[in-house]
Amino acid sequence: MNISADKNAVVLLSGGLDSATALAIAIDRGYHCHALSLDYGQRHRSELEAAQQVAQSMSVDLKTIQLDLRAFGGSALTDDIDVPEEEGEGIPVTYVPARNTIMLSLALAWAEVLEANDIFIGVNAVDYSGYPDCRPEFINAYEEMANLATKAAVVGNRLAIHTPLIDLSKADIIKQGTALGVDYALTVSCYQADTEGRACGVCDSCRIRAAGFEAAGIEDPTRYQTF
Amino acid sequence: MNISADKNAVVLLSGGLDSATALAIAIDRGYHCHALSLDYGQRHRSELEAAQQVAQSMSVDLKTIQLDLRAFGGSALTDDIDVPEEEGEGIPVTYVPARNTIMLSLALAWAEVLEANDIFIGVNAVDYSGYPDCRPEFINAYEEMANLATKAAVVGNRLAIHTPLIDLSKADIIKQGTALGVDYALTVSCYQADTEGRACGVCDSCRIRAAGFEAAGIEDPTRYQTF
Repeated sequence: MNISADKNAVVLLSGGLDSATALAIAIDRGYHCHALSLDYGQRHRSELEAAQQVAQSMSVDLKTIQLDLRAFGGSALTDDIDVPEEEGEGIPVTYVPARNTIMLSLALAWAEVLEANDIFIGVNAVDYSGYPDCRPEFINAYEEMANLATKAAVVGNRLAIHTPLIDLSKADIIKQGTALGVDYALTVSCYQADTEGRACGVCDSCRIRAAGFEAAGIEDPTRYQTF
Repeated sequence: MNISADKNAVVLLSGGLDSATALAIAIDRGYHCHALSLDYGQRHRSELEAAQQVAQSMSVDLKTIQLDLRAFGGSALTDDIDVPEEEGEGIPVTYVPARNTIMLSLALAWAEVLEANDIFIGVNAVDYSGYPDCRPEFINAYEEMANLATKAAVVGNRLAIHTPLIDLSKADIIKQGTALGVDYALTVSCYQADTEGRACGVCDSCRIRAAGFEAAGIEDPTRYQTF
């Protein structure tokens, strides 16, 4: 497509399947991408290494910011709370308070310094875990706020938050990423992956991912722990 | 007043005059206050120590979060850019990209864990430095966004961002804080304070502060560097 060559974009990259696909889409749209990863003290540390490998595989520079959200607690992803292994109701304990709000705010800071008007985030409102900060109405409100927050906004630059996955099923995300050459073997979605990045196969995130590969009719390259 | 006893609030505390006053007002309104400070790599390190002393003087616990915004650069407060010593036009180089957006996002995360529905920030749109993220329209948009971002929002709790100083002149802020017993000698507003917290007297922030004490008719307790 290359409609936006020379345009900088900041892409949030977690190391999971969704954000890797969002990065591939941003590159395909012709953006010069700057990947941003957050080391927030997550228990699944191999996610951070996966982000590094995904960025490298797409020849994109990655900046990893340290921000220890364990200081606040309140999530199974940062705290000593067990990750659930069965489907539950409501917002799960793996929700990290205000994580997307914080990550978008860091992306906004970097975008402003880079003079970039585009931020990509791989949120998805279809096959997701029920997190409030993955919903389209949240993203829209964030974009409104961001357009009042910065020096760039004051001089009339319009910042856009791109959510290329928001309406896609997990299967469609996987199909699109596969078509763009994403190597999903590099990505880690599991909330309790081991130090080698091997998935548990039983948490929310693993279940949604496995079902996505099956529905897409694409072989699942995920490396699972053997019990 | 004590209308809100038992209610938790998160108060952003920088160590400067404004946030110290905002904290005193939140306490006066009967909130159980949790002060939050951000170590973002600011060159004026004594600000952080001032925040500690201010919190202690009001018997409030302070949490200091480390987040190195030097990773992004782009500001005289974090970068090797000189702090201007004369009044300029437009948004000054001391503006830190997306700082208030980031700090409010951290406050939001902590508020959610504390089950607090109230955040206080000492922004001011009258005698201020022209930062976009101090304007009422930014704060309103942030509040809208925050009310879509969290688990608390999903279950119907309404989060409020309080800006008790937003319409006040610097003189009125100083009068109000003095009436509430704020010890302004503990606060550091200077962008290039020395390691002892002594102010330069010539930067934007110093000029606005000194003029505020004069207009209030209150003796200025600021400790200045001697040249």
